[in-house]
Amino acid sequence: MQQTFRLIIDCPDQIGLVASVSQFLADHGASITEASHHTDLQTGRFFMRHEIHANSLSTSYEEFKTAFTPIAEQFDMRWKVSDSSTKPKVALLASLESHCLVDLLHRWHTGELNCDIPCIIANHPQMKQFADWYKVPFHWVDFKAMGKEAAFAQIETLLEEYAIDLTVLARFMQILPNTLCSKLAGKVINIHHSFLPSFAGAKPYQQAYNRGVKLIGATCHYVTADLDEGPIIEQSVKRISHSDSATDMVRKGKDCEVTALAHGVRYHLEDRVIIHENKTVVFA
Amino acid sequence: MQQTFRLIIDCPDQIGLVASVSQFLADHGASITEASHHTDLQTGRFFMRHEIHANSLSTSYEEFKTAFTPIAEQFDMRWKVSDSSTKPKVALLASLESHCLVDLLHRWHTGELNCDIPCIIANHPQMKQFADWYKVPFHWVDFKAMGKEAAFAQIETLLEEYAIDLTVLARFMQILPNTLCSKLAGKVINIHHSFLPSFAGAKPYQQAYNRGVKLIGATCHYVTADLDEGPIIEQSVKRISHSDSATDMVRKGKDCEVTALAHGVRYHLEDRVIIHENKTVVFA
Amino acid sequence: MQQTFRLIIDCPDQIGLVASVSQFLADHGASITEASHHTDLQTGRFFMRHEIHANSLSTSYEEFKTAFTPIAEQFDMRWKVSDSSTKPKVALLASLESHCLVDLLHRWHTGELNCDIPCIIANHPQMKQFADWYKVPFHWVDFKAMGKEAAFAQIETLLEEYAIDLTVLARFMQILPNTLCSKLAGKVINIHHSFLPSFAGAKPYQQAYNRGVKLIGATCHYVTADLDEGPIIEQSVKRISHSDSATDMVRKGKDCEVTALAHGVRYHLEDRVIIHENKTVVFA
Amino acid sequence: MQQTFRLIIDCPDQIGLVASVSQFLADHGASITEASHHTDLQTGRFFMRHEIHANSLSTSYEEFKTAFTPIAEQFDMRWKVSDSSTKPKVALLASLESHCLVDLLHRWHTGELNCDIPCIIANHPQMKQFADWYKVPFHWVDFKAMGKEAAFAQIETLLEEYAIDLTVLARFMQILPNTLCSKLAGKVINIHHSFLPSFAGAKPYQQAYNRGVKLIGATCHYVTADLDEGPIIEQSVKRISHSDSATDMVRKGKDCEVTALAHGVRYHLEDRVIIHENKTVVFA
Repeated sequence: MQQTFRLIIDCPDQIGLVASVSQFLADHGASITEASHHTDLQTGRFFMRHEIHANSLSTSYEEFKTAFTPIAEQFDMRWKVSDSSTKPKVALLASLESHCLVDLLHRWHTGELNCDIPCIIANHPQMKQFADWYKVPFHWVDFKAMGKEAAFAQIETLLEEYAIDLTVLARFMQILPNTLCSKLAGKVINIHHSFLPSFAGAKPYQQAYNRGVKLIGATCHYVTADLDEGPIIEQSVKRISHSDSATDMVRKGKDCEVTALAHGVRYHLEDRVIIHENKTVVFA
Repeated sequence: MQQTFRLIIDCPDQIGLVASVSQFLADHGASITEASHHTDLQTGRFFMRHEIHANSLSTSYEEFKTAFTPIAEQFDMRWKVSDSSTKPKVALLASLESHCLVDLLHRWHTGELNCDIPCIIANHPQMKQFADWYKVPFHWVDFKAMGKEAAFAQIETLLEEYAIDLTVLARFMQILPNTLCSKLAGKVINIHHSFLPSFAGAKPYQQAYNRGVKLIGATCHYVTADLDEGPIIEQSVKRISHSDSATDMVRKGKDCEVTALAHGVRYHLEDRVIIHENKTVVFA
Repeated sequence: MQQTFRLIIDCPDQIGLVASVSQFLADHGASITEASHHTDLQTGRFFMRHEIHANSLSTSYEEFKTAFTPIAEQFDMRWKVSDSSTKPKVALLASLESHCLVDLLHRWHTGELNCDIPCIIANHPQMKQFADWYKVPFHWVDFKAMGKEAAFAQIETLLEEYAIDLTVLARFMQILPNTLCSKLAGKVINIHHSFLPSFAGAKPYQQAYNRGVKLIGATCHYVTADLDEGPIIEQSVKRISHSDSATDMVRKGKDCEVTALAHGVRYHLEDRVIIHENKTVVFA
Repeated sequence: MQQTFRLIIDCPDQIGLVASVSQFLADHGASITEASHHTDLQTGRFFMRHEIHANSLSTSYEEFKTAFTPIAEQFDMRWKVSDSSTKPKVALLASLESHCLVDLLHRWHTGELNCDIPCIIANHPQMKQFADWYKVPFHWVDFKAMGKEAAFAQIETLLEEYAIDLTVLARFMQILPNTLCSKLAGKVINIHHSFLPSFAGAKPYQQAYNRGVKLIGATCHYVTADLDEGPIIEQSVKRISHSDSATDMVRKGKDCEVTALAHGVRYHLEDRVIIHENKTVVFA
């Protein structure tokens, strides 16, 4: 994979904005492999993502950032430049279900997910077997023994010690405390096993079974203090029928969960997601 | 299309049940073109649908029904036999949006929907143009002038006069009174423009836009007194993204509505739907 | 609908290209509602589409085009500017099947398709009823009586007389002669009733039934002299099973055809499709 | 999971057939959890699958089979009874790609696939790491060193020694010799990385990229001597666009492959697939 820089911008929409950014990129010799724009016509907000061959640039990463700063200030941008050779550090949090965890580990192992996974944290010990095979340090945080508060304090410490950039709740069945949600805003991704906003909260498959829906699904979203209400990154659904038992729905749903989470995590790692209020722009 | 009889049964699951029904059918020479079974393992309820070549039977429709009655009683069945040559009478109710109405009319016109459409009823006059072309009597019930109660009384009278078997709310934007819902239980099909239970109530596309979901959908369901809570027959979804405006979502959603409603109505007309409590068995 | 100009460009990818175009647009005060870019990394070709509020520009349509010409020449562009208030003239060609024809007419009637439909041409008289209702002149070209050559000569004359911009084969069951394909290259859209390249040629549903596939589909593509080999704009599929007869497959397939064709035609009318060799870039 | 017997039948359609089978089941006290029927109206062939609680029967598995034999002979049935507690032995064949292999192993590990996996065979050594973790014996058959004929002879020997019931080609990139195809007819499942019959043969993703299709897919099918022409069990597709490179198509396609193969293998293991000529009935 060639090294790329990604320039991610959002700001009030203004005439001349794209011209300035494009001229800046041209002036630095940028060879652009992918460019995406979006204007939210309701709010007048503009979103932009460029992926640039690093070796086409006449400057270093740091110089590039410094040089861009005046433009960013001129247009009142929220912005960042990321370097594809600097891999984000991802912590996986799990409980007893292995399907999402194993899928993410395998995609990481085969290079589909461009990140480091320095640790797996779980509130049960069973997932250690998978962590071991992939040679990822495993931390069992014993919620029952420690109590919820101490347990989350330990998790917070672990995330800090490992300098984690993104926390993925891979069917982690504990609700994050509000303080942690706030602290890690935009840096925690969860998979909820329904097509939200349907069936928020506990036991979504049983809820779906009881309601008699003809679709089952999963939603990958950023975690906020409002449970299951955070910005949605990706959703996946499958058809079901009366002949599907609640067990069948769980099995089919798992495939939705795996797919939606894998997509959501990849989009985040490749800087394809911009959060805007309670929604996302996803340059998929 | 060859004439068929459809034998629809639901009853407590019992050993010997299928054998008795099958033996009865064999004794009458029935050539079966389609047979579907379902046992709800949670409630122990059994559901069955047979489609039989009418001319394979040694008896008439009435004799067939009479002969079957003892078996039905023995197994405590809810049951019916329908004759494909007796077309159900369907009333279409509409407001200002034409897409579902025109789609159903066209499918009826080309023979995909095996029914009669003796009338179209609307709370606005604009749909008359389509009714005229298809030569279907059009009744404009002026809700504004008459008031809601009188308007629905007139609709009820029309449904009775036309001896309507199925009422289809093809984006009819008035909420049926509870008494009518009860009276016509299992005989009124609605299309709701969201993937229920998400976005029940008014303006589902705007709700979906505000929530930032990545799917848009429609739900075809039987109408009950609990608004948007009736048994679901069919659901349809499409992917959307940040680049879809609320207008785009409406356009994409319309295609979901058309599809889900057309399927739901056809399933009902072909006796493929069995309502059980608040859910459906659909032998699609 | 607000008036917009659409600037469509494709050219060799070059550094400075986007900057020049963006600066030009900014200099003319262009308020951009939608911008899409694509670089084909294999061929080094660049594709770009801008949609611009017409009344944000300081110039007229003609002035805008004139002013842009030097930039287009500098970067060796294939390009065009279209004005959303100038509706393309679309001819619909049909045979005996009404589903695609009626669907397009209805979408046009409700304003979803921004075009004029000055004529419907068919090799059978049956579709006249729909043309009449929508008040569109109907031309029955009697292939049997005239012979194929004379019939297509008449069609060609009609397309010229009506100054047709886009010809849509809405299940028109005659193969266009090569000369007409060449003359109208990029201006004739067909719907083929399979997911091409599977089941090219005649009777695709029967082919699909015989092969026992688990999907049925439709393909919307530009017509070229190589039958069913032209650039694909859109494809649509549905799941089928052993329980679907060839008749069921036709019914399900029709829904695919309608959807794929409606999308493809809309994309074309909104200048969202750029043909490049035998493929398309579709800024959907 | 409760022990079940599965009675799978196909025979010429005859009146009295279902009655006889149902009466037999009732006479043996069979509690039926799932019953599926299909009549192929074109060929007059009848297909039936019953799943029965083993402990509801008054007889043993062997007695049940013996007792059913006269009915089977009377109606000229192809039939079998399988016992869910007798796990089929499945061999996985792989090459260099791990996604299908790891997915099947994980589904087996978590109990979704009810089978034994006594061996993994590969023409490259790299997959040994996964085999080791799952504690499945791994056999590297070195095609380069041995030559194709000797290599397949060794594979055949391995399949015999392990008494394999089903061989799954989990992206195994060697073409089985015709003799082996014939010998193992109906017992070898392959995943082809296109929506067949499109893009049979080598490099389907590159073929798809070159053709410019808007869908990518995978096909799970039984292997026959005619390459990529065997009976299709399951197909899966995803939408793609011009912005997907051949690499993106491979990544998206892998998800299709994993899903289609997992479904196909599960259907086979649960005796849900009946092969009829070159097609399948799948009681999913």
